[in-house]
Amino acid sequence: MGNSLGKIFNVTGFGESHGNCMGIVVDGCPAGLPITEADIQQEVERRRPGAAGTTERWEPDRVEIISGIYDGNTTGAPVCMLSWNKDMDSGVYKKNRFALRPGHADYTAFVKYGGCNDFRGGGRFSGRITLAYVMAGTIARKLIGRLGIDVFAHVVEIGGIKARAQELAGIKENAGKNPLWCADPEAADRMTRLIEQAKQEKDSLGGIIEGIAVNLPAGLGEPVFDNFDGELSKALFAIPAVKGVEFGAGFAVAGMKGSQNNDLYDIKDGRIITRTNNAGGVLGGISTGMPVVVRVAVKPTASIGKNQETVDIQKMTKTGLAVTGRHDTCIVPRAVPGVEAMMAVTICDFILQAGLIPRVLS
Amino acid sequence: MGNSLGKIFNVTGFGESHGNCMGIVVDGCPAGLPITEADIQQEVERRRPGAAGTTERWEPDRVEIISGIYDGNTTGAPVCMLSWNKDMDSGVYKKNRFALRPGHADYTAFVKYGGCNDFRGGGRFSGRITLAYVMAGTIARKLIGRLGIDVFAHVVEIGGIKARAQELAGIKENAGKNPLWCADPEAADRMTRLIEQAKQEKDSLGGIIEGIAVNLPAGLGEPVFDNFDGELSKALFAIPAVKGVEFGAGFAVAGMKGSQNNDLYDIKDGRIITRTNNAGGVLGGISTGMPVVVRVAVKPTASIGKNQETVDIQKMTKTGLAVTGRHDTCIVPRAVPGVEAMMAVTICDFILQAGLIPRVLS
Amino acid sequence: MGNSLGKIFNVTGFGESHGNCMGIVVDGCPAGLPITEADIQQEVERRRPGAAGTTERWEPDRVEIISGIYDGNTTGAPVCMLSWNKDMDSGVYKKNRFALRPGHADYTAFVKYGGCNDFRGGGRFSGRITLAYVMAGTIARKLIGRLGIDVFAHVVEIGGIKARAQELAGIKENAGKNPLWCADPEAADRMTRLIEQAKQEKDSLGGIIEGIAVNLPAGLGEPVFDNFDGELSKALFAIPAVKGVEFGAGFAVAGMKGSQNNDLYDIKDGRIITRTNNAGGVLGGISTGMPVVVRVAVKPTASIGKNQETVDIQKMTKTGLAVTGRHDTCIVPRAVPGVEAMMAVTICDFILQAGLIPRVLS
Amino acid sequence: MGNSLGKIFNVTGFGESHGNCMGIVVDGCPAGLPITEADIQQEVERRRPGAAGTTERWEPDRVEIISGIYDGNTTGAPVCMLSWNKDMDSGVYKKNRFALRPGHADYTAFVKYGGCNDFRGGGRFSGRITLAYVMAGTIARKLIGRLGIDVFAHVVEIGGIKARAQELAGIKENAGKNPLWCADPEAADRMTRLIEQAKQEKDSLGGIIEGIAVNLPAGLGEPVFDNFDGELSKALFAIPAVKGVEFGAGFAVAGMKGSQNNDLYDIKDGRIITRTNNAGGVLGGISTGMPVVVRVAVKPTASIGKNQETVDIQKMTKTGLAVTGRHDTCIVPRAVPGVEAMMAVTICDFILQAGLIPRVLS
Repeated sequence: MGNSLGKIFNVTGFGESHGNCMGIVVDGCPAGLPITEADIQQEVERRRPGAAGTTERWEPDRVEIISGIYDGNTTGAPVCMLSWNKDMDSGVYKKNRFALRPGHADYTAFVKYGGCNDFRGGGRFSGRITLAYVMAGTIARKLIGRLGIDVFAHVVEIGGIKARAQELAGIKENAGKNPLWCADPEAADRMTRLIEQAKQEKDSLGGIIEGIAVNLPAGLGEPVFDNFDGELSKALFAIPAVKGVEFGAGFAVAGMKGSQNNDLYDIKDGRIITRTNNAGGVLGGISTGMPVVVRVAVKPTASIGKNQETVDIQKMTKTGLAVTGRHDTCIVPRAVPGVEAMMAVTICDFILQAGLIPRVLS
Repeated sequence: MGNSLGKIFNVTGFGESHGNCMGIVVDGCPAGLPITEADIQQEVERRRPGAAGTTERWEPDRVEIISGIYDGNTTGAPVCMLSWNKDMDSGVYKKNRFALRPGHADYTAFVKYGGCNDFRGGGRFSGRITLAYVMAGTIARKLIGRLGIDVFAHVVEIGGIKARAQELAGIKENAGKNPLWCADPEAADRMTRLIEQAKQEKDSLGGIIEGIAVNLPAGLGEPVFDNFDGELSKALFAIPAVKGVEFGAGFAVAGMKGSQNNDLYDIKDGRIITRTNNAGGVLGGISTGMPVVVRVAVKPTASIGKNQETVDIQKMTKTGLAVTGRHDTCIVPRAVPGVEAMMAVTICDFILQAGLIPRVLS
Repeated sequence: MGNSLGKIFNVTGFGESHGNCMGIVVDGCPAGLPITEADIQQEVERRRPGAAGTTERWEPDRVEIISGIYDGNTTGAPVCMLSWNKDMDSGVYKKNRFALRPGHADYTAFVKYGGCNDFRGGGRFSGRITLAYVMAGTIARKLIGRLGIDVFAHVVEIGGIKARAQELAGIKENAGKNPLWCADPEAADRMTRLIEQAKQEKDSLGGIIEGIAVNLPAGLGEPVFDNFDGELSKALFAIPAVKGVEFGAGFAVAGMKGSQNNDLYDIKDGRIITRTNNAGGVLGGISTGMPVVVRVAVKPTASIGKNQETVDIQKMTKTGLAVTGRHDTCIVPRAVPGVEAMMAVTICDFILQAGLIPRVLS
Repeated sequence: MGNSLGKIFNVTGFGESHGNCMGIVVDGCPAGLPITEADIQQEVERRRPGAAGTTERWEPDRVEIISGIYDGNTTGAPVCMLSWNKDMDSGVYKKNRFALRPGHADYTAFVKYGGCNDFRGGGRFSGRITLAYVMAGTIARKLIGRLGIDVFAHVVEIGGIKARAQELAGIKENAGKNPLWCADPEAADRMTRLIEQAKQEKDSLGGIIEGIAVNLPAGLGEPVFDNFDGELSKALFAIPAVKGVEFGAGFAVAGMKGSQNNDLYDIKDGRIITRTNNAGGVLGGISTGMPVVVRVAVKPTASIGKNQETVDIQKMTKTGLAVTGRHDTCIVPRAVPGVEAMMAVTICDFILQAGLIPRVLS
């Protein structure tokens, strides 16, 4: 258990970094949605390496749909998608199997699974699992797109360098113009240099991604436990390396007064809006109809080439370790499609729960 | 739906701020646990008002257990607990029913429930629902206490004033010494003055609560979707006014390098530990056995006496509103037991899922 | 856990036969449904004793709604309903606590809960729990009634006496005319005499109830695991004493040929129907739109006045036992409202999952 | 949704009769269980055709495990297994696409999915989906086998011919000796002749399968909704063609008195047993520790070569249809492994919920 998410739009992932494949089953997609492998492939490409400091592992990431589609459309049956792993080099992982890599799940996985876990490349704990989320997210995006809902994410901070704030339209237009998915080109340049420097130093960098969803209807999310922010935060914590999630003003509310933080209501084009959006589009756990704005903190890549003191869990002795496998100096940009995917999957489930998309499309 | 949480230790809340009662059903508690109404009452008292700027609504909050206990012990059947509401004054809410209170769930609830929601005192969206969480949390704490697991929370920031950092032992000892649940007495004094000043200004303040769980076994939490941090964050977002959740170094990871953020492993008393705890006790979504450290951002009380521009949703006209009902200037301290409760409930469910507590206690 | 049912229309029961109350929380009911305590009371009355051989325990069964209703309508918040137990006499249960009553859950409950279960009157395993189902079922019936769906049940066999088959209209008209809920008055007379005779003999009788749902749309139920028949059967097995569930031709299919059992399609009033209904309204786990016909086997009341050999679980010795508490000679008629309730609750959940009833009613 | 089952031992199926493959993801299997493709293959072989009147479709049914195993053992990550479809002939299905086959899910699937469903060979509604259940069931059987629990099923009736009753030991020994899985060889001969005759007549036959589980601990199953019989019945209704489920004396209870039906308790080898087993191993929804005995009614194969009147759903006209695709005259024997699989999966989930198998095996 643990690998499924969603009440109506339900996804179940499988696969390991150095196993046969990464895959996901999407159950609960309405029938009649046109989907091709090319659609999924296009989104998957966006999470492939390319930017400064990204991994040298070069996976083709070819998406195959093996169930749930007939004649180009979803059938109502579960859609299973997978991508076969090709470019694995497990030698170094086997050699250092028992030397716990600091910051990785090596220790917790070892304890939880009594050493039976597939440790190669992090196994089921690899960032590579987001590949499967992106596949599922593509279907979710197509569905919610039918209501005009759009989801996009961008990098707002890497290694302490912050992108300057801008309007949503500018973010959407500019974020895709550089491989860092940073909508501020000047900051992106500085981030790139910092990443290259960190790579030289055999070190790594963290950052912050902001996800935005626009054109949501007000009223999504159940109160109390299955609320919009709670479910979305749960989904985002499924992305490896995420250490924090905040909505709207987020942690800054600690320094604000009510009179600053409260978003005043107004009427625009006959519709109720708020003048500001400190709530990040969620009040009382329910969407307000304003853009959902959520930020996730992504920790620096745990794999670093520097020597680190650690423990050999088999011998129970102290040892040193420099992580030499292929890895990203800064995983933040590559997590951007994952953030979008988790947002799309979560929103899609709420939309279907609310009965806003019919179970048969036409 | 939306009012239930947990796979094995399952809680289902009900009740509204100005309805008959607040209540919760705890299903899945092992049989044979001694529980009295006095046990629950004791915890419930901790969330009652008292500090500077807390509400004048004075509820007795008498806990009644109406099922699931026989001869002083849990029976394995669901435990229903409730507290009858007594001190309601709904007049002002009825008078201003259609004037949306900024920062509250008035608008989202109105849209979601087509105006049928019980709006009095916020209804099901009131902070008062945490009363029921605390009841459930008390049972959870007793259960996990059997494994030596302890959960406590404290206020680390109010209105921009930060408590100084200290060791866990000091936090636990000092937090309960003032009504703000702030372990730093000097900061607590300044916070108190700031709250009094905000009250004078008819304004309100937000803050940050830190929750800590110690003596957890390593290995709790499922990978990927039902992971420890994701489930806990979902539970914490069920507390009204929470706008962010972070673990360990949290959002600060954005400015850290891997060599700073990685917690190095060491051996102590024959057990593997980490020297630092930037991970906040969670790696790969699984508990490390180090203390779980989680912080939640609590927004300033939405109810403020200052006049605010808003909208009358019935007339669809602009209007002004000063919220005059009884409310807390700063809800942060009163949310401390709620944070502890949600942590205890979440941990308890993981513990039971892992089979670490038998289904019959003796 | 175990006391909740339903994905969107979710019910959570609590209470014990000799505890304070029987209760249920209904979460997920759309907002805006008019409900009064009198509505619920009316349905609850139908399961009260009265026919030949029914129990002498005389509970007022007064329904109280303690949450989720405002101004006469559901609010979208969970509806908690309960009935306080009044007429308990636990003396005999305490006296014979450790002598396992054959056919009851005494032994299994003792093992599962290590002897901590509330054994008085069967505790959580009493047929009295159906009282709470009926409360929830009343809400479900009102909801599905908005689509014209009607659910009713009747007794088709008691102690080997079978009611003669008749058309649905006749069943609906005639079933309520006698306290046995048997639509065949002549059979009902014979059943009554048989029950009186069994009572004399300090014995008990079983029977079969048939539940019928009409005007369902085709297309309800998910394929494979969450299918219509599977979910309904699961709900029906929650009624104590049920030992079998069959749809349409049911177990008789074992002696039929495909050419006999297949229901041929036809067109009537521009709509596709089947000429026969051996399928009982379900094909491939999905409703056909024909009446759903389901039968449940109800075992003879386990409590009998005859002496039975059994075991004292505390002393681990053989002993004899005549069950002298108040009980029904034949529980079958009193389970009729429970069957209707479980059908209504299950259908209501499928209807809501399919988005066929809006989340806000008007 | 609808394609997942189980709380801790969770299975998610996918695939269609004439699609690329049949597959299943098993999530929640403890780590450290040795599993090979050969293990799964062996069980899968048992459901392949062979007996009189079985289909001429000749699928190799080669099992591939594509995730979740490392070094021969489960890793704790989800195990995805699949079998690629090879011998499809969809021509006849395409030709008769809109002529509804009586007794099949053609109509309900068409309505539910708006005609988008993969209709070839019944698509997701084919009996072929049990292939995937058997894969998952093999893992479940291995797990519960560690506690000594054994599950087996046999055919007790086909076309009105009943096998004579015998002891469990005899059933287990004899059932596998003929391709009908009937433990009574004389009845099996008569059944075979009847099947051959029905095949000549282009007709089909139904029957009854009895599933038995031995060595279960007492105490499995949650009371009320998630009880042992309810969950098992839900799982069994997932097998296509099942129209009824009964435990122990089942529907025969309708003609029994309490004094006949009640199983008297006794002590044997220091353990409490019942002298009879009319309860079928379940009381109050909880396992008694006696053998679980459950019977399922399997309807005659809906596909028959005889001409049947039906409707063309596209033209909305009456038409005639003789189903000419390859199919089984009597599917009952081929459903035997499916019954065993669903029993094993359900029991395994209860065992894991109860914490009776550790999450790491050794």
